[in-house]
Amino acid sequence: MEAAIEEAPFDGLADAERKALARCRHAVLGADRPLRLDCGVELGPYRVAYQTYGTLNADKSNAVLICHALTLDQFVAEEHPVTGKEGWWDSLVGPGKVLDPARYFIICINVLGGCMGTTGPLALDASGQPWNLRFPVVTVADMVRTQAALLDHLGIPDLFCVIGGSMGGMQVLEWAASYPARVFSAVPIACAARHSAQNIAFHEVGRQAIMADPEWKGGDYRQHNTVPARGLSVARMTAHITYLSEQALQRKFGRALQDRDALGFGFDADFQVESYLRYQGSTFVDRFDANSYLYITRAMDYFDLAAAHGGVLANAFKGTPTRFCLFSFTSDWLFPTRESREIVHALNAAAANVSFVEVESDKGHDAFLLDEPEMFRTLAGFLKGAAAVRGLKDVP
Amino acid sequence: MEAAIEEAPFDGLADAERKALARCRHAVLGADRPLRLDCGVELGPYRVAYQTYGTLNADKSNAVLICHALTLDQFVAEEHPVTGKEGWWDSLVGPGKVLDPARYFIICINVLGGCMGTTGPLALDASGQPWNLRFPVVTVADMVRTQAALLDHLGIPDLFCVIGGSMGGMQVLEWAASYPARVFSAVPIACAARHSAQNIAFHEVGRQAIMADPEWKGGDYRQHNTVPARGLSVARMTAHITYLSEQALQRKFGRALQDRDALGFGFDADFQVESYLRYQGSTFVDRFDANSYLYITRAMDYFDLAAAHGGVLANAFKGTPTRFCLFSFTSDWLFPTRESREIVHALNAAAANVSFVEVESDKGHDAFLLDEPEMFRTLAGFLKGAAAVRGLKDVP
Repeated sequence: MEAAIEEAPFDGLADAERKALARCRHAVLGADRPLRLDCGVELGPYRVAYQTYGTLNADKSNAVLICHALTLDQFVAEEHPVTGKEGWWDSLVGPGKVLDPARYFIICINVLGGCMGTTGPLALDASGQPWNLRFPVVTVADMVRTQAALLDHLGIPDLFCVIGGSMGGMQVLEWAASYPARVFSAVPIACAARHSAQNIAFHEVGRQAIMADPEWKGGDYRQHNTVPARGLSVARMTAHITYLSEQALQRKFGRALQDRDALGFGFDADFQVESYLRYQGSTFVDRFDANSYLYITRAMDYFDLAAAHGGVLANAFKGTPTRFCLFSFTSDWLFPTRESREIVHALNAAAANVSFVEVESDKGHDAFLLDEPEMFRTLAGFLKGAAAVRGLKDVP
Repeated sequence: MEAAIEEAPFDGLADAERKALARCRHAVLGADRPLRLDCGVELGPYRVAYQTYGTLNADKSNAVLICHALTLDQFVAEEHPVTGKEGWWDSLVGPGKVLDPARYFIICINVLGGCMGTTGPLALDASGQPWNLRFPVVTVADMVRTQAALLDHLGIPDLFCVIGGSMGGMQVLEWAASYPARVFSAVPIACAARHSAQNIAFHEVGRQAIMADPEWKGGDYRQHNTVPARGLSVARMTAHITYLSEQALQRKFGRALQDRDALGFGFDADFQVESYLRYQGSTFVDRFDANSYLYITRAMDYFDLAAAHGGVLANAFKGTPTRFCLFSFTSDWLFPTRESREIVHALNAAAANVSFVEVESDKGHDAFLLDEPEMFRTLAGFLKGAAAVRGLKDVP
């Protein structure tokens, strides 16, 4: 298998993905046993790009899987190879932090359909052509299947904890539902058991913006040496508004003007909030693939854990041995607290061991990525308790 | 003046505008005394398109001005000349309705910058070329100035009531602040005294979507015989989400599929909410001008009544003789109740006569256009009281 990893074809990868792969680990899986996707397609071989922090202990009991959100990736706690920014969960992961690599073997895997090394529409098919829109539509369950396959490959039988926010939280729920025996504890943050109509609507706007861009070329922009930059930028701008609370935008920007003393009476960015959004849109294009954005938003839209279990969410967790700790944020309007409550109710109905904290925060959905002391304290306590039951040493 | 109206140049008008003008009244104003806009430009002559219902009484005391929202127009209570749909406020205006043309002389004026007959970027300049992006950026105060000029032209000294929702509510507030002696009663619905950072952000996304469309041609699409249909459609889709509540979307669509029994594993509209949004986007293009959309969203962004009065909102209403009745809706997240409360506080500080009702509704911002019995009952009572004070007859 190691040989196969080394021989993974790097040709045709986008620059960003090349940089990512040069800085993380990866495995080529499914060559012998292809992955059967929810859509019915069999995929294999496929590449899984991942990053690890810390060391797996002798009894393999300290593995923590971090599941990333829509546009994040495996570079959890280090400088990003493309943007040069700090790790997206540096606040939580690192020496002395709640998830300390001195104690845990921390793994984060770029999701299936992604663009940071794991196989997605950016990858090449057997004939050496980019998949683009011929890549099969994947689901959150498919993402989790590739993660389980990687753990098999790495010889990790089970996980001390699976943790993630937003789409990462959906993966956590899917892990607990699909592989209960492999999940000792689960921490779904700022997520839902199914994507709401409003959330599908916002994703659809983003996809339409990308597909409306003539540079998208029906998904074949790479062959045409174009980038649907404007469409992808508009998609990101729309999504970005949903990640912040109205209060956060008001506090951060209000009606403050950008580099001017008076209204410009034109269509330049008069207001700071416009300038900020334009910047968010334009920088996103440098680090994310437009087709990947289509696929991953689609996977989130398709997520409906109850539907996959006879329409009853509690069935997804029947007899679960997993210990759960859920978090939501008061000002998160993308995944409001009631969505977490529905999961808690289902877990209670399944007689699961579950804690739930609604964290007071005015930062909106993005709060899960920020320094939220109440969440960190509660999470540390939860992990300490779980570690004691698991018999994990060195967790204070 | 009547001659000027008849001679108004119809050349070069878009089809939709031509149809609109054929079905409503219009006046050409400002030929002798141009309108000085907030941006400093003097505009004139300019055309004002409007519709009226009912008859002005002998003492000219029964005039009601309805101010329309962003993409609405003067066709309040009749079949729309372009879409063929019923009037947008048919529920409120008509025989036996709260605003009955048998009692009131009802006027609605297409806003400055609009595309249903009033001068905007669609109109031709003195040289016969479409204004497009050379049209001056207008404000809500400019819109109100043209409305006051039309009333002068029609010989209507003052208004029994000025009423409107959303951007229409902004105009109502501006009327009360700028022409207090001409406004006997004012009904601002589902609006704010200044556009919030989040609202500016959503508008900016819409504008960027339009301007990203290569068919927009820097605003000169008419000369190129193109239409930035995809950009305008994405803009409308984004805005449309903000007009509905999360609950309304969930109730109306949830995760119901469109014309299929199972997920399609593709990027067609799997979900009804996607199909609905796409329809909203595509039909909008047939009735609204993309440049107008840029101008009118900009006017809303610029609206900040306190800023125009030394930073103190109460100053805008100092000594006001107007009777106010405000409405907000519990599930309106575009103009939430707290925005209306701020106006009420300012009116109280100015010792104004003010009523305020927060209507329980799960329909979101769009509730102001729908059949909301609590609002209608309260409004009827308010108007009855105002009519009694005014000495208006025939208001039961």
